[in-house]
Amino acid sequence: MLRYAVIGMGAVGGFYGIRLAGAGARVQFLVRHDTERVRADGLHLRSPEGDVRLATPDVAADWDELEPSDVLLVATKATANDEVRARLAEHATRLLGPGGGILLAQNGIGAEPGFADAAPGREVLGGLAFLCSRRVGPGRIEHLDYGALTVAAHALGEQPAGITPLMEGVAADLRATGTEVILDEDLVRARWRKLMWNIPFNPLSVILDADTDVLVSDPSTVQLIGTVMAEVAAAAAAEGRDLPVGLAELLLAATRRMAPYATSMKLDWDAGRPMEVDALLGAPLLRAARSGTAMPATTVLHQQLAFLDARAQGGVQPAG
Amino acid sequence: MLRYAVIGMGAVGGFYGIRLAGAGARVQFLVRHDTERVRADGLHLRSPEGDVRLATPDVAADWDELEPSDVLLVATKATANDEVRARLAEHATRLLGPGGGILLAQNGIGAEPGFADAAPGREVLGGLAFLCSRRVGPGRIEHLDYGALTVAAHALGEQPAGITPLMEGVAADLRATGTEVILDEDLVRARWRKLMWNIPFNPLSVILDADTDVLVSDPSTVQLIGTVMAEVAAAAAAEGRDLPVGLAELLLAATRRMAPYATSMKLDWDAGRPMEVDALLGAPLLRAARSGTAMPATTVLHQQLAFLDARAQGGVQPAG
Repeated sequence: MLRYAVIGMGAVGGFYGIRLAGAGARVQFLVRHDTERVRADGLHLRSPEGDVRLATPDVAADWDELEPSDVLLVATKATANDEVRARLAEHATRLLGPGGGILLAQNGIGAEPGFADAAPGREVLGGLAFLCSRRVGPGRIEHLDYGALTVAAHALGEQPAGITPLMEGVAADLRATGTEVILDEDLVRARWRKLMWNIPFNPLSVILDADTDVLVSDPSTVQLIGTVMAEVAAAAAAEGRDLPVGLAELLLAATRRMAPYATSMKLDWDAGRPMEVDALLGAPLLRAARSGTAMPATTVLHQQLAFLDARAQGGVQPAG
Repeated sequence: MLRYAVIGMGAVGGFYGIRLAGAGARVQFLVRHDTERVRADGLHLRSPEGDVRLATPDVAADWDELEPSDVLLVATKATANDEVRARLAEHATRLLGPGGGILLAQNGIGAEPGFADAAPGREVLGGLAFLCSRRVGPGRIEHLDYGALTVAAHALGEQPAGITPLMEGVAADLRATGTEVILDEDLVRARWRKLMWNIPFNPLSVILDADTDVLVSDPSTVQLIGTVMAEVAAAAAAEGRDLPVGLAELLLAATRRMAPYATSMKLDWDAGRPMEVDALLGAPLLRAARSGTAMPATTVLHQQLAFLDARAQGGVQPAG
């Protein structure tokens, strides 16, 4: 198996990292808060597919304590990307050999080029998690449902990169943990496809304070979700990434069958954390503007979320 | 002075009705709930411009108890229009002489033709209140700020109707109470002009749980408000009603100077009452669709509000 280091021990990094270590991979975990407590108590994954307990995990308190790996699994929130890229630029050469790479398990689109710049000559993979899990305490992750990871490789000019040996290696390791892995030849198309669900559901769950099951039960929100999905499909098509016909209906039907689900953005919002406004809305809107694609409904959601995020983080003060 | 009957003793009808009676006009008040209490306690307007107390108001418990008047001041919420029009159709001939009319002091656009149908041969005036007041109890109104009323007449085919003698009569009576009255020759233009403020601010104050001073203090919401105002101006222009150049900037600047202000929709929402979703958003959007004007951002606000209103009134149940 490959050697891994997990940067970002939240609901996503914790889930995949603990499962990989539980299956026998060498996994280092970067844990900067509660480090001693995690070293003493271990790492715990509660899951309907089987609990995993790591009694003596390999925990690093800082980047300096990380050892060379084959894969850096970066699963921090996109809001921390500036800081993570800066640390990566300092440590990439030491931590990753020429055959190694970064697996960026994050929402959004277009972050991979920045990580590629921070780690010259190293492969950058995007990871798109279809996962319902949450961090319930230091070193403690609860897995609720799903878990599939789509993996695709970044290439210069955002061209489709095909299936690389590193992708195959990551897939083999994750499949050994019982995780479903989908390898995709086109990272940008995979990210737009995921955004087609994320762009309507994440903001609306926050703005309207509603779980996904409620949003797909009202004709007004169903119509709005359909409008936004059509805008996303148009923006993807303008980049040469035609999403499958009927995908919107398929995603709506799948969401109707899902259990009530609080989106990752809703979890951040309810916990008072900054939301991934730029990654999920700002970056796609910027790309759409560049390709000349109008996204008026998505723009409204972005403006509303930006307001809510700024107010919650203390940034909106009436002038009067 | 003219003789008045006030239908709808809320923040708007109460304010103008009590002031008219206080200035000596014969005013009947339709009070269907707490009728005996209001008869015993009287009607009270608290106002920085002077309190008015009517110790023995002329209170009718039902339409049957109303006497003939010159003006029916209808100031019910637009959500009650179906019921009010039905009662009006029964009583209009008895209550209003050929020279009399209805003054519809309500938000929205396009309700006057329905009232004209319910009272054939009687004049219908639209009243647009720029008023900050609230009902604080049975027969008790608190005036906070402003109070100007714009009055314009409905004419067949929604053509500009000019200034009618009834408008002049109403204006003279209200001015005698110290109220500013603006007479407008074009009802439809006056309603679009008012909607230019109402369509962005009312929904956003509910959706984002924010007073007007906060909405005009954040660049994202200012941008969104600007987009929506431009859509309203385009819809008005498509009906041959060009709103003044620079009106959007003027309204934003005026809102910045206003005290923190909860919109009428926000007051309804916070009190658990149905919101005027159709009057403020549904009707304008329908007119825009007829004139071929795209209002994508306004459509999003409408869909979000319709969802919130339906959920609050108990209408959204997850299918699962």
